[in-house]
Amino acid sequence: MQGTHQPTPRPAAYPVTDRTVPTRAAQKASYDKDLVHAILDEGYVCHLGFVRDGAPVVLPTLYGRVGEVLYVHGSTGSRPLRMAGQTDPGLPVCLTVTHVDGLVLARSAFHHSINYRSVVVHGLAYDVTDPEEKRAALDAVVDQVVPGRVADSRPANKKELAATAVIRLDLNEVSAKTRTGGVNDEPEDLALPHWAGVLPLRKGYGTPLPEADLAPGTPVPDYLAAL
Amino acid sequence: MQGTHQPTPRPAAYPVTDRTVPTRAAQKASYDKDLVHAILDEGYVCHLGFVRDGAPVVLPTLYGRVGEVLYVHGSTGSRPLRMAGQTDPGLPVCLTVTHVDGLVLARSAFHHSINYRSVVVHGLAYDVTDPEEKRAALDAVVDQVVPGRVADSRPANKKELAATAVIRLDLNEVSAKTRTGGVNDEPEDLALPHWAGVLPLRKGYGTPLPEADLAPGTPVPDYLAAL
Repeated sequence: MQGTHQPTPRPAAYPVTDRTVPTRAAQKASYDKDLVHAILDEGYVCHLGFVRDGAPVVLPTLYGRVGEVLYVHGSTGSRPLRMAGQTDPGLPVCLTVTHVDGLVLARSAFHHSINYRSVVVHGLAYDVTDPEEKRAALDAVVDQVVPGRVADSRPANKKELAATAVIRLDLNEVSAKTRTGGVNDEPEDLALPHWAGVLPLRKGYGTPLPEADLAPGTPVPDYLAAL
Repeated sequence: MQGTHQPTPRPAAYPVTDRTVPTRAAQKASYDKDLVHAILDEGYVCHLGFVRDGAPVVLPTLYGRVGEVLYVHGSTGSRPLRMAGQTDPGLPVCLTVTHVDGLVLARSAFHHSINYRSVVVHGLAYDVTDPEEKRAALDAVVDQVVPGRVADSRPANKKELAATAVIRLDLNEVSAKTRTGGVNDEPEDLALPHWAGVLPLRKGYGTPLPEADLAPGTPVPDYLAAL
């Protein structure tokens, strides 16, 4: 309406760049922020790539998301975290999160596939030095693994914070890829006698195993039972 | 015994290199071939890292193991596969496989962790051009996902083989990392009222979903039911 203040709409998608435009299967790529956030929020283990002496290194590590920022933490001796602190203006990284949802079994070996959702983030990782941001980042990583856990644990003390390094990676250059649905067999293969379909994958949790030295009577917290 | 022929023992471990010696948590690293093979054989999705224009790229993809060789396949248009075919003597890659076994919930935020098993392979990826090796590699990838499936599907034809690129990565520079067991809390934290222990993770399969156009009466194969 004329004269009415319109808030600037929050962009719903990440910009497409040379690094995030796919070379193939373009129909599977998405830059939708809500989809990217949902995929990231369902996980807590990423694969972090960086370059050392010209060669790639890929390490599994925990992450936490706070709005449009991802945090990764580790020992101050960890190589990528140390490198991020020593690289100006930041360490080039690629952070990837993948969920496998099902196995796609086609009649032809060629058309076998998996159903999955993945997010790939490109950018520069910056060493987090501000104590408040660092503390919030560590909380985000713990709550990413078990939502609600931060409020039910002893916060990091100064010595522990000093022993921990944190990097931040902004969600600027991001793409999601997904495959869903059934088999794409060739028409001439449909009469073959092989079973064809999708085998869904299930993830879940077993029974919580309390520590032997846990105070007797300590109940399993609601946020664990809810997982 | 003197005079008795002794076969050369198969080396039980990968050599330690500058790239596979850990910077920290050294007690978690292993170079044992049997452990590495077991971790690789339990999975079928890896995260493949390579360098493009000086920056790292990490993509999830399927793999198959044949002895001391890993194969990755994809479209001939796939960037890392295309790059491997154009790079002499091969494309530097890092291939990582990770299994998450449990969430480790300590009384202190700092000592939270996960139980996991991972394998990191460094090396050069070579474009596979020999038709027989290529076909065997594709079989290995399919059987890695569902053992026994290759024998129950239509083999790739010439056109499909031509549309598929395969790279090989030899298992030379390899390390495994694992964390198992319970919580490592500080002695002074043991009396805190927080629940502490391990939440095991479970992976499994749902009910197979047959394609709508599957011939009526096609049974679910034994190798699927056995998963």
